[in-house]
Amino acid sequence: MATVTAAQQRAQAKVEYDAFLAVCPSRKLLDRISDKWVALILAGLGSDAPHRPGADCAGEPRALRYSELLRLLAGVSQKMLTQTLRSLERDGLVSRTVVPTVPVTVSYELTDLGLSLYGMMRGLKAWAEVHMDDVLANRETYDTRGA
Amino acid sequence: MATVTAAQQRAQAKVEYDAFLAVCPSRKLLDRISDKWVALILAGLGSDAPHRPGADCAGEPRALRYSELLRLLAGVSQKMLTQTLRSLERDGLVSRTVVPTVPVTVSYELTDLGLSLYGMMRGLKAWAEVHMDDVLANRETYDTRGA
Repeated sequence: MATVTAAQQRAQAKVEYDAFLAVCPSRKLLDRISDKWVALILAGLGSDAPHRPGADCAGEPRALRYSELLRLLAGVSQKMLTQTLRSLERDGLVSRTVVPTVPVTVSYELTDLGLSLYGMMRGLKAWAEVHMDDVLANRETYDTRGA
Repeated sequence: MATVTAAQQRAQAKVEYDAFLAVCPSRKLLDRISDKWVALILAGLGSDAPHRPGADCAGEPRALRYSELLRLLAGVSQKMLTQTLRSLERDGLVSRTVVPTVPVTVSYELTDLGLSLYGMMRGLKAWAEVHMDDVLANRETYDTRGA
């Protein structure tokens, strides 16, 4: 077996990941991060969220407790939030801290890797908010065109 | 009724769209664009795709025929591709051109709105490809930690 350094392996792997291919692991990763709840959790922890009284400045990453996330992501079920947070923790995008208060306080914050993804996701959420009017107008045109 | 201009309505609507809210239409739009196939179709039409012989330069947006998209997006079903293209056309992100050859040639390309979303999506796909190794390493650590 030829000896290859970790850096060489890494460079080779990067060349080989191609999300267009169904068998590529990066397709599965794209699938996981292309998720509404992932986008909203990252946006919440990255602080792209409505101001609360006493909150840190907008734009500053922050730790949020489970209950705060549940409130922020209107409409998310506890099951979905727990599952999504666990997969984000497993992927190393979010870190989970348990403080042994009574009752126990569990909080979540972005890792460095999570912060880098947040930069991307933030753009997507902002795009959806800014271009909503254009999209609604396009839909109306499309739907009346066939009438 | 107070008279408001279209521009005023538009400015007001933008302030009000907040994807954290379950009832906000931008949440639905975020849900739709947070989709693996949407990301891959935009990447394909935006030409963030493997070189083919005789293809335009990489990075140049291009029109693709239905059959070319089907081949590029390995693993997509015809039903899923047709549905996704139709919703992208309805949202004004992709335009559809029919040329009356025999058989009929149907091709798709990005609109200006689609191009602006492509800029975002492209980053997401690239992120997944570049950080795949980190995520795989994190998963291994997470899975052995509990053992």
